[in-house]
Amino acid sequence: MYTIKSRIWIEGIDGVCLGEGRIKILNAILKEGSLSKAAKSLGMSYKKAWNLVDSMNKNANQHIVITNTGGTGGGGTKITPYGMQMIETFENINKNCWEFLDEQLKAHTL
Amino acid sequence: MYTIKSRIWIEGIDGVCLGEGRIKILNAILKEGSLSKAAKSLGMSYKKAWNLVDSMNKNANQHIVITNTGGTGGGGTKITPYGMQMIETFENINKNCWEFLDEQLKAHTL
Repeated sequence: MYTIKSRIWIEGIDGVCLGEGRIKILNAILKEGSLSKAAKSLGMSYKKAWNLVDSMNKNANQHIVITNTGGTGGGGTKITPYGMQMIETFENINKNCWEFLDEQLKAHTL
Repeated sequence: MYTIKSRIWIEGIDGVCLGEGRIKILNAILKEGSLSKAAKSLGMSYKKAWNLVDSMNKNANQHIVITNTGGTGGGGTKITPYGMQMIETFENINKNCWEFLDEQLKAHTL
């Protein structure tokens, strides 16, 4: 009895834009409302989370995350509408890929 | 402009049976005719290659690799007919998956 698994990632012009780990950070930002709290909730250093978010933005066609580092309302990190679309697309393709692979495995006799 | 990439692997009852790295070892065994030469050609220790082959066999429904450790004709490592079928299936599903993901990415506006 076999199972088939996969990891997918989307690359932009200069490297990885989105993968499963980055999606986890984005979902944590959505839940926690700030990058520092999101990093903490994932047991990740702020520096690492910041670098990953920076790399997402640099490799995306539009900004995925906007970080406000201060001001009257404090900091706060937001996912842009484009970022929301990227999350949804990634999760959708990922799910479709799993279904596709399950069908592929069934179609082959092993 | 985005590209989408993937890694797939097949798991058996107790863990990973086949993945891209293991397929490389099997193809190197086919080319070199022995596990030690295959390991060397991949810059991998014999011990690591042996452990990976052992894990493939343990997690497959039938043996993938047969190793003869001595005898008149020396050692020599062979891929079983079932192993050949597993290699072909893996590479086929992997290629289908890449095509599927390219289509998926095209079908989404980003």
